[in-house]
Amino acid sequence: MLAYDGHARRSVLSTPHGDVDLPTFMPVGTQGSVKTLAPEEVASTGARVVLGNTYHLWMRPGPETISELGGLHGFSRWPHAMLTDSGGFQAFSLSSLTKLTEEGFTFRSHLDGRKGHLTPEEAVRVQGLIGADIQMQLDVCPPGESPRATVEEAVARTTRWAKRALASPRPEAQALFGIVQGACFPDLRKAHAEELAALDVGGGFDGLALGGFSVGEPIERMHETLAEVAFCLDPERPRYLMGVGTPRDLLVGIEHGVDMFDCVLPTRNARNGQALTRFGRLIIKNARHARDPGPIDPQCGCAACRGGFSRAYLRHLYLSGEILALRLLTLHNLHYYGELVAGARAAISEGTYASFKRRSLEAMEL
Amino acid sequence: MLAYDGHARRSVLSTPHGDVDLPTFMPVGTQGSVKTLAPEEVASTGARVVLGNTYHLWMRPGPETISELGGLHGFSRWPHAMLTDSGGFQAFSLSSLTKLTEEGFTFRSHLDGRKGHLTPEEAVRVQGLIGADIQMQLDVCPPGESPRATVEEAVARTTRWAKRALASPRPEAQALFGIVQGACFPDLRKAHAEELAALDVGGGFDGLALGGFSVGEPIERMHETLAEVAFCLDPERPRYLMGVGTPRDLLVGIEHGVDMFDCVLPTRNARNGQALTRFGRLIIKNARHARDPGPIDPQCGCAACRGGFSRAYLRHLYLSGEILALRLLTLHNLHYYGELVAGARAAISEGTYASFKRRSLEAMEL
Repeated sequence: MLAYDGHARRSVLSTPHGDVDLPTFMPVGTQGSVKTLAPEEVASTGARVVLGNTYHLWMRPGPETISELGGLHGFSRWPHAMLTDSGGFQAFSLSSLTKLTEEGFTFRSHLDGRKGHLTPEEAVRVQGLIGADIQMQLDVCPPGESPRATVEEAVARTTRWAKRALASPRPEAQALFGIVQGACFPDLRKAHAEELAALDVGGGFDGLALGGFSVGEPIERMHETLAEVAFCLDPERPRYLMGVGTPRDLLVGIEHGVDMFDCVLPTRNARNGQALTRFGRLIIKNARHARDPGPIDPQCGCAACRGGFSRAYLRHLYLSGEILALRLLTLHNLHYYGELVAGARAAISEGTYASFKRRSLEAMEL
Repeated sequence: MLAYDGHARRSVLSTPHGDVDLPTFMPVGTQGSVKTLAPEEVASTGARVVLGNTYHLWMRPGPETISELGGLHGFSRWPHAMLTDSGGFQAFSLSSLTKLTEEGFTFRSHLDGRKGHLTPEEAVRVQGLIGADIQMQLDVCPPGESPRATVEEAVARTTRWAKRALASPRPEAQALFGIVQGACFPDLRKAHAEELAALDVGGGFDGLALGGFSVGEPIERMHETLAEVAFCLDPERPRYLMGVGTPRDLLVGIEHGVDMFDCVLPTRNARNGQALTRFGRLIIKNARHARDPGPIDPQCGCAACRGGFSRAYLRHLYLSGEILALRLLTLHNLHYYGELVAGARAAISEGTYASFKRRSLEAMEL
């Protein structure tokens, strides 16, 4: 740990593909590509970990093909660190006829109806072939606002699956993170975090994640739960808040001790014509940008803003269906996220995180 | 003129945005963007002229907006030369209720049904606002295989419109090219070329184009006509073959003395999953590429081939609908076209164009 500022913390995660300054935001490269961008562009935003979705890569092109072609790093030419999820979330949400048992998930592929079995062991095997630096255990993620009994059951099964994942053989260089469930019940979350931290099968988990957030619960409840729970996760291990979130979510998560985030929001919103900026969201198709010669954000250092691409031009490209609009907006949004976590790291080192957070939130609400 | 090798010729076109080595291929940036690519990527393929479509830019965002934002160069951030067509081709083919009279075209916008009038004078005015380095006159382009009488009428009207275009005020820095029509009637083409070359209103034309090819006639007839006609165009001015073509078309055109080409083929085919290479077309989705670790072309110097992106990865991206596939294929195809014209230029200088053409065609048919 390099520095603490309240619960907020700055540290370095070492991976076989380089060190990563934490807190960090990880862009999502669902199918082996951060949508619209080339690897060097992703790196230019400051990102040093890219997330791959195991379910998608498993269904197509298949883990054996990826392994044969040098693993996800060689295949997608991303030279920095990578993390894969377990595949459970998409297997459940995208495929049809999913059945959940103690053994794992049975599902039919959303691509070709092929039957698949996803168990804690299979998730480790498939992620082993895909070859990211960090694997995630298979977990059970109940819908937001599930009753306590359902959540308790999911927590208990996730722990049993955690043991099976840890006991499964995986490549030595790969880390494995456990996933804390418990919805918005702080006591369940805390107990689960302790339980997972205590597991020592196969050396135990290399990091701990908070799963099951941003699945339909009110955002304020997530923030309240984070405030009670995040700092309780074993401080010796990186803490990863899965699938979250907005710039505000990042600021709140970091405040409570979270180190890693991933979310499709900056990339997906870009493709929907939204630029995320220090001063809030900018809807590029709005008529007010039609003759605006200025960049998205004159203070931004991304290639879109520095390259002289005006709001008027971006609006024109977006309305014309030109791919370059999606590229430039994606680049900008990820750069903004990169700047946000870089700013947070600097503030933590200086012991000024609280004011950094306040100033950032105030600017967004303008 | 730097060199002649038979009718093939090597020269330099000077523009306010730099010198252009001829023969050259001009990528099409229909709506102010060469689809999927950023300006520096287009330049990396060797391209030094980009074509903008006046009709599209006129309808959206409008020439006044473009002018206000620095002209098409400032708007789209392309630092090298640009050429705009007259808008006539798209006004006729894309819009509805088009009416052609001696005055010009009347049409309804394909975007919003708004009525538009395109006259030789209006084409010069609109292109003046858009601000490319080279304007094209408004011409009448009859469908392929039209009867001789129809073609004669189109030729005569194109000449009358040429005079009106030359007499229209335009920014001093902008060149204006005339368009030779005459379908596949060599005598009409030659007479029209002489007629246009002889016009001296407003200083006459700065270049001469061959329009009305690749509009439905058999490709061999186009090649035959080019053989009889292209070298007859005034040798002191650049010769531009509009909307053509395949790598073979370029090799044939250059042989007969053409200096400039444009075509959507390399960019459109890329978006349809076709890589154009020295050794022919490669359909990226074919199953044979599924585990191929090699690049599209190991000898190619484009960022896709040099960057280690395998055929297997490109296939995966393409099948997954990932935009990066379209970008890399577009980059490759334009780079291939850039290499083709660069090779032609070198061969002309060395007096070996005939064998360069033969070897290139043989390699493609493998």
